[in-house]
Amino acid sequence: MTSRVAVPLVKAYRLLNHGPTVLVSSAHAGRRNVMAAAWSMPLDFDPPKVAVVIDKATLTRELVEASGEFVLNVPARQQAELTLAVGTQSGRDVDKFSLAGANAMTASAVGAPLVEGCLAWLECRVIAEPHIQGAYDLFLGEVVAAWADPAAFSEGRWHFPDTQRRSIHYLSGGSFFATGDAFEV
Amino acid sequence: MTSRVAVPLVKAYRLLNHGPTVLVSSAHAGRRNVMAAAWSMPLDFDPPKVAVVIDKATLTRELVEASGEFVLNVPARQQAELTLAVGTQSGRDVDKFSLAGANAMTASAVGAPLVEGCLAWLECRVIAEPHIQGAYDLFLGEVVAAWADPAAFSEGRWHFPDTQRRSIHYLSGGSFFATGDAFEV
Repeated sequence: MTSRVAVPLVKAYRLLNHGPTVLVSSAHAGRRNVMAAAWSMPLDFDPPKVAVVIDKATLTRELVEASGEFVLNVPARQQAELTLAVGTQSGRDVDKFSLAGANAMTASAVGAPLVEGCLAWLECRVIAEPHIQGAYDLFLGEVVAAWADPAAFSEGRWHFPDTQRRSIHYLSGGSFFATGDAFEV
Repeated sequence: MTSRVAVPLVKAYRLLNHGPTVLVSSAHAGRRNVMAAAWSMPLDFDPPKVAVVIDKATLTRELVEASGEFVLNVPARQQAELTLAVGTQSGRDVDKFSLAGANAMTASAVGAPLVEGCLAWLECRVIAEPHIQGAYDLFLGEVVAAWADPAAFSEGRWHFPDTQRRSIHYLSGGSFFATGDAFEV
C-alpha cells in the first residue's frame, strides 16, 4: 500500500515545479530584461514550440508582448545565484544585465539577447493567442533557433559533464535541485 | 566567451524535456488508461492549475475529453520501467493497469485512478479551452486534490530520501535523468 498525505492545494504546484528553471530574456525599443521562470515546457516537436508562464506584473511581459519575441536560456548550477537574483528583482528597478554574470550575447533570429554562460538557448517567436495570454499568463512560442553548450548537450542529448554544468530545478525560496544521474531503462 | 553549437530544431524540445515525467491516468464509462507524458508544468498557484500535452492519437485524449478529468501521477525512479512501458504501448491494445506495478487506487475527487507507488498525485478537472486543445493538444486542468508520499514530499517540499524514490526526467528512447542533489542559494 502506498503511503500518502494530502498536499495543500496552494502548494500543489511544487509537485511539478522541478522542471528545468529557465531565464526568459526579452528586448524592445532599446529596453531589455531577463527574469527567471520555473514554468516552461516543450509543446511540439516540428516545428518546435514551447509554452511559458509570464506574469502580468513583469517588465518581461511588457517587452514580450511588444516585441513578439523571447529567449529561453537554460542556466547552469553555477548560475544559480544569478538565477535567484533575476528572479527576485524587477527590471523596472534595475538593469538586470548589469548584474554579475548576466552578460548579454546577440541572438541569431530574434532581438532578445542570450545570457552568456548558460547551457542552452531557445530563440522564440510568440504564437499570438491573446485569450490564453490574458486568462492564464500563458505564452506559446515557436522555436526559431536553438543553441547549446556542447560540453553539456551534444548529438541531441544532455551530458552534464560535472556538478556545476547541469540544469537546475527551482523549488521555492533559495532552494533548488540539480539534475542528477543519467540512467537507461 | 560561451561555447555553443546549433541544435537542430527537431531536437530543440529536448533542451526543456527534463521536467519531471508524469503518468496521466484517465477513465470514462468503464474504460481506464494511463500514459507517460514528458510535457507538463504548473500554470497557477491558487487555485492551482496545470498544463499538459496530450496527443490526439491517444486513448488518454479520448477519455480525458469525454470525462473532463485526469490525474497527473509523479512516478519514482523505481517505476522507470513501468513509465517507459506505459509510454510506448497504447491503451487501445492492452489494459495498461494489468502491467506489473500499475495498480490503480481510487482518487478522491475525480473518476480517473491514481497509480500506486508514485511519489505524488494531482487530481485535475479539465478547464475547457477547445481552441488550444485542438490546435496544440494542450490541456489545462484545475488541481482539485493533490497527494504525495510523505517520505518524498512533506511540509511543501520534495526530500527524495534515497536513489530510488526521486522523480525522473525523460530524455528520449529509454534514457532518463534522476533528480539530483538539493542545494540552497
